[in-house]
Amino acid sequence: MSAAEFDLIARIRARAGQRGGVVLGIGDDAALLQVPPDRQLVVTADTLNAGVHFPDATAPADIGWKSLAVNLSDLAAMGAVPAWCTLSLSLPQADPSWVDAFLDGFLDLADQHAIGLVGGDTTRGPLSISVTAMGLVESGGALRRDRARVGDDVWVTGTPGDAAAALEALQQGREAPKSLRQRLDRPMPRVAAGRRLSGLAHACIDISDGLLADLTHICESSGVGAEINLVELPASADLASVESNRRWGWQACGGDDYELCFTASPHNRDLIVQALDFTDVSATRIGRIVSEQGVRAFDADAQEWRPPSRGYEHFL
Amino acid sequence: MSAAEFDLIARIRARAGQRGGVVLGIGDDAALLQVPPDRQLVVTADTLNAGVHFPDATAPADIGWKSLAVNLSDLAAMGAVPAWCTLSLSLPQADPSWVDAFLDGFLDLADQHAIGLVGGDTTRGPLSISVTAMGLVESGGALRRDRARVGDDVWVTGTPGDAAAALEALQQGREAPKSLRQRLDRPMPRVAAGRRLSGLAHACIDISDGLLADLTHICESSGVGAEINLVELPASADLASVESNRRWGWQACGGDDYELCFTASPHNRDLIVQALDFTDVSATRIGRIVSEQGVRAFDADAQEWRPPSRGYEHFL
Repeated sequence: MSAAEFDLIARIRARAGQRGGVVLGIGDDAALLQVPPDRQLVVTADTLNAGVHFPDATAPADIGWKSLAVNLSDLAAMGAVPAWCTLSLSLPQADPSWVDAFLDGFLDLADQHAIGLVGGDTTRGPLSISVTAMGLVESGGALRRDRARVGDDVWVTGTPGDAAAALEALQQGREAPKSLRQRLDRPMPRVAAGRRLSGLAHACIDISDGLLADLTHICESSGVGAEINLVELPASADLASVESNRRWGWQACGGDDYELCFTASPHNRDLIVQALDFTDVSATRIGRIVSEQGVRAFDADAQEWRPPSRGYEHFL
Repeated sequence: MSAAEFDLIARIRARAGQRGGVVLGIGDDAALLQVPPDRQLVVTADTLNAGVHFPDATAPADIGWKSLAVNLSDLAAMGAVPAWCTLSLSLPQADPSWVDAFLDGFLDLADQHAIGLVGGDTTRGPLSISVTAMGLVESGGALRRDRARVGDDVWVTGTPGDAAAALEALQQGREAPKSLRQRLDRPMPRVAAGRRLSGLAHACIDISDGLLADLTHICESSGVGAEINLVELPASADLASVESNRRWGWQACGGDDYELCFTASPHNRDLIVQALDFTDVSATRIGRIVSEQGVRAFDADAQEWRPPSRGYEHFL
């Protein structure tokens, strides 16, 4: 470990704050954590690479926010309460002001969800951020992909597609409305919604690859199929007036706003609406689970709709 | 997630094997793990980048081995039993044969330590491997950096310096003896030794930055100092005949063979030797903990020795 790396870690450590259950945080060979005896541990790891997962010009604070948000979104999809995380940061050079700005975004979101930064490392290399997030869930209470049942409603939180619209504008050199850009740069992981859906939803996934692609993951894991009515897809004010085929491309195939897609018994419709009343997001019924394999989307004329592409492709 | 990424993950999942305590492994938004109620969770994260942490020409299987080994070494330094890990793999392109070879090394070491691969991701980007390893330790039984006491012996496992000698040869375009090269490419994390030192050692650290640098970390955390007799440093057959100043440079400042440095009461000398009898490595007393701050190394004439450099510098 060089003096520069040691300084960066001291900088991160000084700002990491406190969280319950941490016997030993940053500063030893490993962190030492106390998992409550009646809880299961939920663990997810996601990496963001410059130019692949965010445009090169993204502000460091937004990169910090997003690198934690994508991991919190996975915890949300499991119905878990965020607890601790580690951060592995590869940087072309030891740049304290970049790290400070990155931490502004990372720790802003971490504080909102009371997740403790307990370890990690800083290394030299092309800009890359790997986060591992750990959460806690009551034993048996986790939301899974493989529990969808024929006859379930299919729901989605929020107004999907906003981030994909912003990304397309950016890639075409146009300026996106600030509200859409915010959804791309600062996705809000649906942690509170995931918590409240535990016990109410059958299956759940976060939409990181696009609604149709991620619903396909639920269906394949559960051995079922799904039918989606695209006209039911809730659209933000920015997207409401966009021609529907174009809008559905973003909404059904873009994943960057990290909403949740879940299935639940029709008996739970009212309970679900009430449960989400107390969170920052509502949910909308957009289709149902069927026995026939595959995910099919239908347009306003009940004709099957073919998406322009299915989800974001890392290895194109 | 693209078809290519999905294929890679399916490949990894098929080979990941089974481990106790895994309620849900690879294939959902997150893994679901059961931590035994009388254990604390030990968590460490380390990233390896091509050209920084391993030479570009390193065989994929060796990269796989090493990326897990450096994390297991941190668990070893805490006295923890390896339990689970996640793997985030950034690759320039989706290359199944590279991933297969990487997994040969990674899973070979994982199987030796019965650690379960439970999650992670694959992304496009410059070659980079981030691993988070989780281990278990009896409550209160973890080895820490901040517990060294004045009067303690300072010990080191194995024959440090071998990997640094191999690395120097490599960097100078010379061929290193196979036995040294093996120590660089396939470091053996001292997991069994760490386990057996729990309750016997006061403080412990793995030597990733070099003996003197890492012993400095123990001393600073514990508010003490240390004196090391370089003539006591155990040398492998390959290094035994090398001129001592040159050899000590590798042994005192090279960290790539990931031995353990620990401190313990002189009363425990026999117990420590006996405890390590049942592991793959022995330990040697090389100095003692003193009240005067700082780490000082002495040569055969009891003159203070100045190292050529102090540890490996990531941000040079």
